[in-house]
This record gives sequence, C-alpha cells and structure tokens, in this order.
Amino acid sequence: MAWSLGELAERSGAELRGDAAIEIERAADLREAKAGDLSFLTGGKFAEHLPATRASAVILAQEHAAACPCAVLVSKNPYLTYARAAALLYPRPRPPAGIHPSAVVHSKAEVNPSAVIGPNAVLDEGVRIAAGVVVGPGCVIGARSTIGEDSELVANVTLGTDTVVGKRNIFHPGAVIGADGFGMANDQGHWVKIPQIGRVVTGDDVEIGANTTVDRGALQDTVLADGVKIDNLVQVAHNVHIGEHSAIAGCVGIAGSAHIGAYCTLAGGVGVVGHLTIGDHIHVTGMSMVSKSLSEPGVYSAGVPLQSNRDWHRNFVRFKQLDDMAKRLKKLEKTLAEDAQG
Amino acid sequence: MAWSLGELAERSGAELRGDAAIEIERAADLREAKAGDLSFLTGGKFAEHLPATRASAVILAQEHAAACPCAVLVSKNPYLTYARAAALLYPRPRPPAGIHPSAVVHSKAEVNPSAVIGPNAVLDEGVRIAAGVVVGPGCVIGARSTIGEDSELVANVTLGTDTVVGKRNIFHPGAVIGADGFGMANDQGHWVKIPQIGRVVTGDDVEIGANTTVDRGALQDTVLADGVKIDNLVQVAHNVHIGEHSAIAGCVGIAGSAHIGAYCTLAGGVGVVGHLTIGDHIHVTGMSMVSKSLSEPGVYSAGVPLQSNRDWHRNFVRFKQLDDMAKRLKKLEKTLAEDAQG
Amino acid sequence: MAWSLGELAERSGAELRGDAAIEIERAADLREAKAGDLSFLTGGKFAEHLPATRASAVILAQEHAAACPCAVLVSKNPYLTYARAAALLYPRPRPPAGIHPSAVVHSKAEVNPSAVIGPNAVLDEGVRIAAGVVVGPGCVIGARSTIGEDSELVANVTLGTDTVVGKRNIFHPGAVIGADGFGMANDQGHWVKIPQIGRVVTGDDVEIGANTTVDRGALQDTVLADGVKIDNLVQVAHNVHIGEHSAIAGCVGIAGSAHIGAYCTLAGGVGVVGHLTIGDHIHVTGMSMVSKSLSEPGVYSAGVPLQSNRDWHRNFVRFKQLDDMAKRLKKLEKTLAEDAQG
Repeated sequence: MAWSLGELAERSGAELRGDAAIEIERAADLREAKAGDLSFLTGGKFAEHLPATRASAVILAQEHAAACPCAVLVSKNPYLTYARAAALLYPRPRPPAGIHPSAVVHSKAEVNPSAVIGPNAVLDEGVRIAAGVVVGPGCVIGARSTIGEDSELVANVTLGTDTVVGKRNIFHPGAVIGADGFGMANDQGHWVKIPQIGRVVTGDDVEIGANTTVDRGALQDTVLADGVKIDNLVQVAHNVHIGEHSAIAGCVGIAGSAHIGAYCTLAGGVGVVGHLTIGDHIHVTGMSMVSKSLSEPGVYSAGVPLQSNRDWHRNFVRFKQLDDMAKRLKKLEKTLAEDAQG
Repeated sequence: MAWSLGELAERSGAELRGDAAIEIERAADLREAKAGDLSFLTGGKFAEHLPATRASAVILAQEHAAACPCAVLVSKNPYLTYARAAALLYPRPRPPAGIHPSAVVHSKAEVNPSAVIGPNAVLDEGVRIAAGVVVGPGCVIGARSTIGEDSELVANVTLGTDTVVGKRNIFHPGAVIGADGFGMANDQGHWVKIPQIGRVVTGDDVEIGANTTVDRGALQDTVLADGVKIDNLVQVAHNVHIGEHSAIAGCVGIAGSAHIGAYCTLAGGVGVVGHLTIGDHIHVTGMSMVSKSLSEPGVYSAGVPLQSNRDWHRNFVRFKQLDDMAKRLKKLEKTLAEDAQG
Repeated sequence: MAWSLGELAERSGAELRGDAAIEIERAADLREAKAGDLSFLTGGKFAEHLPATRASAVILAQEHAAACPCAVLVSKNPYLTYARAAALLYPRPRPPAGIHPSAVVHSKAEVNPSAVIGPNAVLDEGVRIAAGVVVGPGCVIGARSTIGEDSELVANVTLGTDTVVGKRNIFHPGAVIGADGFGMANDQGHWVKIPQIGRVVTGDDVEIGANTTVDRGALQDTVLADGVKIDNLVQVAHNVHIGEHSAIAGCVGIAGSAHIGAYCTLAGGVGVVGHLTIGDHIHVTGMSMVSKSLSEPGVYSAGVPLQSNRDWHRNFVRFKQLDDMAKRLKKLEKTLAEDAQG
C-alpha cells in the first residue's frame, strides 16, 4: 500500500528531511532497495551500506543523516519507526468477512458478522467470535471458547475448550492453546490422569508462534498477560503465568506453575523449572536452565563454551573431577600456608 | 457432574469423615474453593491455606485432618485420590456417536458405530476404528492404521500409514504419530532418503502431548509400551522403544533406536543420544544429555548452574582451561611432595 | 513392489554374487528377515547376526561376503546401496491425480492436472501447483505460494503466503513453512510487531520433518538450499540461510539471520545464536550451543557429562568457583616459583 513520505513520517513519528511528496511503495534492505523503497539503519554495523543505497528514503538516527544520499526520516528509535512505517506499507491482509461454506460452525456458536471464518474451520458449541476476528483455514475452536476483537488465528490453530483469547491476538499456524496439561498421580508405578479443568486466558496484544503449545491449567488458569509475545515451538505448561510484555524466544520450555514476571525476555532454548517465581525485568540468555527463583532484575546465563571436539573431550572428563580438584587446591593452600609459618 | 461426598469417598478409595450427603459439584484450589467444591492438600507447602478454606470437603493425609474446617476424605495418597475423584466430577466429554457429514471416510475404512468421527476428519483406505473411539476435528488417519477401543484423538492429530494405536490412548492436538524417521545414506555429500517402512505401535493407556512427534520405524517398529505418558513438543525418533509406565516431560528429544526402560522419567528438555539403552527406574533431571547407556536405577543429572551474566562470563572462560588446570594442580602436588621428601 | 535380485543389483549399483532370479519382495532386519527379504549389514556391530540370517539376500561390504549364508550384493557403501534398493521395493505411494471434492481451491489457483490435492486441503488465491505434486489432507497453502514438480506435502502442512518450494521436496505433517518471524521493536517496554515481508524459498530435494517451523524472512528471504534435510521439531528463524546438503537433526533451534554453510550437520538439540556465520563442513554434536561464528571445518562440542545426581550436586557448586579456583591455582604456582628461586 503506497504512501507519501510526508504521511509516513507523520504517522510513524519521525522527522522528515526531504521531499514529502516522494511516493513509498515498499520496504527493503539498504543494499537491495531501489526507487520507491523505504529502508532503515539501526546500528553501526550496516552503516557502510548507507552511502550507496538506492532507496528513496531511509529511517535512521540523527548521527547517520549526513551520510545518506536520499531523503531521511530521523528517529531516536529507527527500528521502532520502521515497525510503524512497515505496518502502514504492509497492513495484514484479511479476507472478506463471512463464514466460508466449508466451515463447520455449531448452531450454538456466535460469530460477529464482521468476522472471517475460513475454509474448513470448525467451531464447536458455545464458541463466541467477536468483531473483526479472523479464524483461518483448518482452525479448530473448542466448545465455549471466546476470541476477542480483531484477533487472528492464522491457520490450523487448535484452541481447547473454554479458552479465553483477548483482543488483537495473533496465533500462528499449528499453535495449540488449551490442550490438557501433563498432570498425573502415581498409583504404584502406574500414572493416573488428573482432569485438567483450568483454562488458558490471554490478555490483549498477545502473539503466539507456530507450533507453540500453551496448556490449560490443572485447576486454576494458565495466563498470558497483555502484550506477551511467544515465538515458535515453545512449551508453556499448565498454570504458568507470564507477565505483561514479556517475550519468549523459540524452543523455550516453561514447566508447570512457573510464574514469570513482566518485561522479561527468555532467549532461545531456555528451560524454566516448575513452581519457580521469576521477577520483573529478568533476562535469561540462550539455552540456560532456570532452576531457582530469581527476583533481582538483570541478565542471567548458564552453559559451557563450544570447543573443538578434541579440546572438549579433554576438558569433559575434568567436569567430574571438579569437586576433587577444589578440595586438593584447598589442601595445597593449607600446606603452603603452614610451610610459610613453619 | 455432581456426586454425594459419600459416593466420591467410596469410589476414590478414601475414608470419609463428615456428612456423606454433602453434594460435590466441582473441584477447586484450597484458596478459591467455595460451597459445593472439593479440594485437596498434597504437601506441607499449602497446609497454611487449609484452616481458612471454604471448600465443602478436602482430600488430605491423616496428619492434616485435624486442621481442616470441613469434611475430609482421608487418604494415604491424596493426589491419587484427587485424580480419581476429579475423574468422576469431570468425565471426558464426548460428542454423540457417528460420522460427521464433513468427514471424509474412505469406502474401505471401517468405523465402529459407537465411534465419533469429527468434522473434517479424514480416514484413508483400510483404516479401522474400534468401539468408543473419538477422532476429533481435522484429524488425518493414514491408510491401514487401527485405533483401539476408547482411544481419543483430540483434534488436528495426524497418524501416518499403518500406525497401531492401543486402547484408551489420548493424543492431543497437533501430535504427529508415524511420520517418516530421519533416515538417510550419504552419497558423496548428498543425502539419499531411506524408505521408512516400520510402524508406530502403542500399547494401552498411552497419552501423547500436543505437537509431539513420534516417528515410524525405519525397518522395525517404534514402540510405546502400556501406560507411557508423553508431554508436549517431544521428539521420539525412529525405532525408539519406551518401556511401560515411563513418563517423558516436555521438549525432550530421543534419538533413533534408543531403548528406554520401564518406570523411567525424563524431565523437561532432556536429550537422549541414539542407540543407547536406559534401564528401568531411571530418572533424568531437566535439560541433561544422556550420552551413554545407563543400567543402574537412580537419578542422573548434568548441566551447569545459572549465574548472573557477569559471573558466568568470568567462569565461562575457565571451562576451556579445565584440563590445563587439572594438570597444573597435579604438578603442584608433585612439587610439594618432593619438597617435603627433600 | 517385487524385483528380481539381478535387477536390484544393477539398479542400486552393487555387485551380485548369487542367483539373479531370486525374487525380492521386502526389506528386513538381519534377525527378522525371511525368504523373499533383502537385508543389509553396515557395520561390524551387527555382523554376528549374519551367519544365521534367513534373508534371501544381504547387501554388505566385501569383507563380510564370505560369512553370508545367502546371496549377497557387495557394495562399498552398503547403507547407500540399501537406500537405493529400498526405494525400489517401497516407492512412495501416491493417490490418483486430481482434486478431492472436499478440497477448497481458489478460483485463481493453478493446479497441474497430474497433481494430487487431498481431502480438505485449502489452496488460496494465486497458488501454483506443478506437475506430480501431492498436497495431502488438511494442508493449507497460503496465497501466491508455488510448489515445484513432484514435491509432497504429506498432511496438515501449512505454507504461509508467497512461499516458494522447489522440486522433489517432502514436508512432513504439521510442518509450518512461512509463518511470521519473531520480529519486534520495543517502544518503552511494549513490543511493536514488524511486518515480516520476506519469504521462505527452498531448493530442490529438501525434506522437512514433522512439526518443524521455518519462518519467512523479515525483509529478505529465509533460504534452504538444495538437498537440505531437516528433522522434526526444528525451529528455523527468519532470514536464516542453510547451505546445500546440510542436515539438521531434531529439536535444533536456529536463531534469526544465522548463516549455515553447505555439508554441515547439527545434531539433536543444538542451538545456533542469531547473526552467526557457520562455514561449510562443520559438524556440531548434540545439545551444544553455537555462540560464535565458525569457519574451520571440523567437529565442535559443548556440554557437561551426565552423572549420578549426588556426584553432580557436588561438582555443580564448583562451577561457580571456577574463576576463583583458577586464580588461586595461579597464586600457588607463583608462590612455589618464588620459593624455588628464594
């Protein structure tokens, strides 16, 4: 969708330096941009490509403006400005409102006339679909689930029964929200299933990635607060609570009843042990296991460095000797201290 | 589904202390329970909430009975008693028997009249569906697969061809059972696919979580024995065998031809290297890699502690020096021993 | 599909020693094979089963030929020869060409008459399906996506809009190719979505496992080059590039804009940090985190050994003391050196 550069500047909150009438049709990388394209520069790393860009305009910080051969949109946060401008250039497409004839909608489901129900979608009894919602092809919505205004289930998403979805959520293909949690009692070695009767409840502006799973609560609800963003292939177990505006990267696993605060980030592959409490503003780097509660804001890490397989083998065997090494070191220190005194 | 407390006690095998006529309608957490609710207390941690509960009855151990303000069901294993009582209060809902008109059932598939085939389900040639089975919306059942009595495929589950599913299995949404294993030969750098002609065979009472994948065998079968429970987003590769009543938590990956014994538990994020044998009653803690066979029952662990990013960076560099440190330590010990002798 | 042993030998490039007229109907493990079965022996480990096999023929290396009680196909790479022979015995089944009446195909989609569009598949506007393609049951193909000749989407696969699939690709059930990447700018703590306008482009002979996710690019494309093979439950983030004939095992996560070379292997559970460059012929062992770029071909590893929980606890605490231990060790060395000089 084409915009004049002036309008883009105004709506994305940036300062225009250049011709407001320039028509922008697309966004593109600095190196690949051509006439009609808007590009952006976020960090020093790509600045070398700026002088040669053929973009019609570039979003950038004040410090880079002088080096730009075309119109600029000056911003204190170029990446954010780009996000806003790109949302104008590329509004999410939506099919025309209405229920596709191949969709199977229970007679006791309610669908707002402005909503889209795609081909082969299935809506069970008591489902309620608010205005502007898009339920894509192949989605299955369990009984009594409700989806708030302008939310979108892209395709092949499954919602369990009684799921409550807020406004402006986006659930990507294959996401499963509201399946049973992994709750079992043990009867002399055999596992006995515990009915999972809590729900999943999401706030507004939640986004959930492809093939991610968020289990319903065992008794109480699993809750994703406003603004939570979850990447692909993430497992969120029953009764987990994720606070406002926290972001969870791909392949993370969060065990049951863990409570994660607001404004947190968990990088890819992180694991969180069950029943822990993680405070606000806590950031965990990739593939770390969080095995204790954390309250102090900050960055946390675990893991060992990648090495050549040969070097790693040499060090690997020492991991098992660490405690022994520590004790021997202490003994040597003691011996030397006695020698010095003696 | 409402029950009298007396009946719940009898059917769940607990000792009733209180009025057998009390009507129980729901289960609820101790703190949130109100009249008509049954709650439970499993461990000391939640005992503080017992005196103030407004539940109509609480399942608990003998030692906590005196502190309870309402009727009690005394049990040696309160969590198990709760599992049984909750199963009575919350029987799994099932739609009326029959094949939904939107389902696509091959003319050479056999469906027991008591089974449920949901909207948009697809059953290929030679599929056999036993009595009481529920095939939910959007499920795809490959040719010649068979599903045993009272099993349930919740929604959007895919079974590959020739899969054999036992009785009372539950497969959650997005699970893929019987896709090709990752088998390839190498031809001068190029990978050549090896047809995967084994099956997946599950015993009775197996449960498989949302978006979990269990690959068919390469030549022989992949086997999940009776009572195996698997959480969400678990990968079970070709030819794996998981023994009776073992439980596999979320995000676990089990590589090809691994053989896991009975009554094992693998915690979240564990990885098992291919072709290993893990004996019975072995328990592996979260995010550990099992890189050798294990025969001795017990608990096994790996992994390094989470630290502040700053502390971690300091220690991180030392991991590469471990072997060097060990050798230097040994040298110091030798020097000191010689000094002492000299 | 039955073949004479002579034909199998010729077509799989092996040297026949035995009766060319023997009819082979199936492939089977050495121990389970019976008359009419072809088996194979790849390594010394299974050689003990060779003398007692009841197979009609065995594929093996020259050195094992003498010990075989039946006809042999001698090969320098028995596993590769088996792959070729098994592909002849077990050709991938394909339904008859045509569009199933329950499929929903947009009026502006183009489907080659030799293609198969399965039950309940959904093809959006502008989709183009080449000759010989199989789109299985429940697959959803986003607008303007194209699928090259003889590719197969097994079942319940989702392709995002504008996805470009090469020839002879196989995508297993639940795979999601072309969903939005996890791209967000931060606005005073709140996340603002960045439209993901790149595509996923796959080369020829790419295979993608069950429930694996490959995100579309943010601006540029996510690319899987010719011959790339990806196992189940793998996350490939936006803008990732995977080079020719690289193989990625289950549960791997590759973060955004990582560039992986050709002929690489990533073992199960490996994580690759974003924006890294990994050269050609690099192999990473299981569950390692690749946190820096790698250019030197070779094998790389990380991770700590599995131990009994008791031993692990003892060593665990020392991980946090490593830097301290290293410094104390150095101090002791210095003290002793001074003593020796003094």
